Amino acid sequence: MCSVISRVKPVQRALASTLRLRTNADGLNYAAAQSRRFCPGFITGAQPLWVTSRSYCARIATTDGLLFRQLFESESSTYTYLLADADTKEAVIIDPVLETIDRDLKFVSELGLKLTVAVNTHCHADHITSTGPMKKRVPGLKSAISKLSGASADIHLTEGDKIPFGRHCLIVRETPGHTDGCITLVTGDQTMAFTGDALLIRGCGRTDFQQGCAKRLYKSVHEKIFTLPDECLLYPAHDYLGRMASSVGEERKFNPRLTKTMEEFADIMNNLNLPNPKKMATAVPANLVCGLQD
Amino acid sequence: MCSVISRVKPVQRALASTLRLRTNADGLNYAAAQSRRFCPGFITGAQPLWVTSRSYCARIATTDGLLFRQLFESESSTYTYLLADADTKEAVIIDPVLETIDRDLKFVSELGLKLTVAVNTHCHADHITSTGPMKKRVPGLKSAISKLSGASADIHLTEGDKIPFGRHCLIVRETPGHTDGCITLVTGDQTMAFTGDALLIRGCGRTDFQQGCAKRLYKSVHEKIFTLPDECLLYPAHDYLGRMASSVGEERKFNPRLTKTMEEFADIMNNLNLPNPKKMATAVPANLVCGLQD
Repeated sequence: MCSVISRVKPVQRALASTLRLRTNADGLNYAAAQSRRFCPGFITGAQPLWVTSRSYCARIATTDGLLFRQLFESESSTYTYLLADADTKEAVIIDPVLETIDRDLKFVSELGLKLTVAVNTHCHADHITSTGPMKKRVPGLKSAISKLSGASADIHLTEGDKIPFGRHCLIVRETPGHTDGCITLVTGDQTMAFTGDALLIRGCGRTDFQQGCAKRLYKSVHEKIFTLPDECLLYPAHDYLGRMASSVGEERKFNPRLTKTMEEFADIMNNLNLPNPKKMATAVPANLVCGLQD
Repeated sequence: MCSVISRVKPVQRALASTLRLRTNADGLNYAAAQSRRFCPGFITGAQPLWVTSRSYCARIATTDGLLFRQLFESESSTYTYLLADADTKEAVIIDPVLETIDRDLKFVSELGLKLTVAVNTHCHADHITSTGPMKKRVPGLKSAISKLSGASADIHLTEGDKIPFGRHCLIVRETPGHTDGCITLVTGDQTMAFTGDALLIRGCGRTDFQQGCAKRLYKSVHEKIFTLPDECLLYPAHDYLGRMASSVGEERKFNPRLTKTMEEFADIMNNLNLPNPKKMATAVPANLVCGLQD
C-alpha cells in the first residue's frame, strides 16, 4: 500500500468521530435554535420543509484552510474536483478527464499546488480518465482507485482508507451498485462527500452494465451516504441539468428514486431501457489501465 | 425605491468596513503565518507563486449560515446564483435564465426559500432573463437591475445600494465597460463577488457593443474588483471552459487581459473581431423589459 494512504485505525476512527461531533455541533448552532420551526414553501404547490436540528439546505461548507475547485467537462458532463491544503499546498484531484487535462494542470500550476493523488471514484464508462497521462506530467503523482474496480493503479483503495493532503483528508466509503468498485470520498470533517455515480443530484448512476446491481446501490446509498450528516454537501461525478451540488438532507428528502422502497427502486432501475454510453467500448478498457493506452 | 433595498449610509459603510477587517483578519491567520513563504510550482514551466499575507488560492468561503447554489444554463453558458439566509430563508437570485426557470424555482421551493429579489448584473445580450416570468410565479418577488442599464425593473440599483436577505446582504458596485449598466454584487463580508460580464475567469466581457468601452471596463475592474481582498471568491456570469470560480488574487495575477496596461488592454479588446451573440437581436429588447415580452 502506498505511503500516502493510511488505513483508518480504531484510534483514528475515534478521533474522526470526535471531530465530526465537534464540527456538527459548531455548524448547527443556528439550526438547533430553529429546531422544529416551520418554514413554509411559499410557491403554490411546494411541499413545505420542517427545519429540524439538521437542515435540508446546502450551506457553504466551512472547512477552514481548504482550497476547493469544481470543474466541468461538457462532453460527458463530468465534474472534476480539486482539493488542497491552503497551507501545505498538497492536493488531490478526483475524476479528472482526458479532454481537460491541460486546463486542470494549469490550475494546479497557477495555484502552486503539489498534486499527490489522482483518484477515480470508479472505472468510468462515459469518458477516459486523465489519471495515467497526468502521472507522466506530474512527478510523484500516484493514481488511486478502488481495489474492487479491477483497474490497475498505484493505490488500491478499500473501505476506511484515508487519503491525506496536508491537514485534510478524504476517507473512502465503498458504495458499490453502479459498478463493483464505486467509492464515495468523504472529507475528514464530513462537510463534503464526492459520490461518483453512486448518488447524483435527484438521481443516481445506472445499474444495467459493469456489474451494476440496483439493490446493492440502494443499500450503499442508504447505509454509506444517507448516514452522513444532513448538511454534508454532496458533489457527484455528473450532472446533466447544470446543478452543481446537493446535500444529504436534500437527497434523503427529494431524490425521486432513492426515497422509494428498495423494491420500487429496483423496479425503476431495471426498466430504464437506456442505450449504452457512447464511449463505453473505448472508455472502460482505457480506464482499466488508468487511461494509459500505450 | 423599494423597501427591500437600502442605500448604504455612512454609518453602514463604517460597519461594513469593520466587518470586512474582522473577516479578513480571521480568514488570514494561516496566510499571515506563511507570509512570504516560497511555494514553487512543481510542474515544469509553471510560474511559482509567492504566498504573501493574501493568498492567491481560492478557499472555500466561510460565511456562516449562508445557503449558496451555483447553477448553469448550457446554451448560453450562463451561471445563475441562488443565495439565502439559512435561518430566515430570505433569498436572492442573480442572473436567472428563461430556459431554466422551472429548475431554479424547483430548488427555491424544495429548499423552502422566500425569494425576495431577482437581480440581473446587466442587460444581457446572449440570453433572455427569467426575471419577468419569475415575478409572475413568485408573489412579492421584485426585479432589480442597474439604473444605468435603461431597463425597466421594480428596483433600480446604483453604487452602494444594499440588497439584504436575512442577516446577509449584497452590496452594489457599478462596474461599467461591458455595458453602461454593469454591476458587481459583493457579499457584506467581501468573501464573494458576482461580477457579471465585467470580469470572467481569466477573461472579461466584450466591449464592442451595447455601449461597450474597453478603457471604462479596465478602470471598473481595477478600481472596483481588484480592490477587494485577494481571497474574495469571484463568480462570473459565464464560463465557457467548465471553470466555476476564481478569486481576486488569482485574476490580479493570471488574467491574461486585465494584467496588461490600459492601452494594451484596449488594443486587445478593440481587435477581437467577434460576431455578435446569436440571440442579441431578441435578447436585448426582451431584457430591457425584464424578460416580459407581452
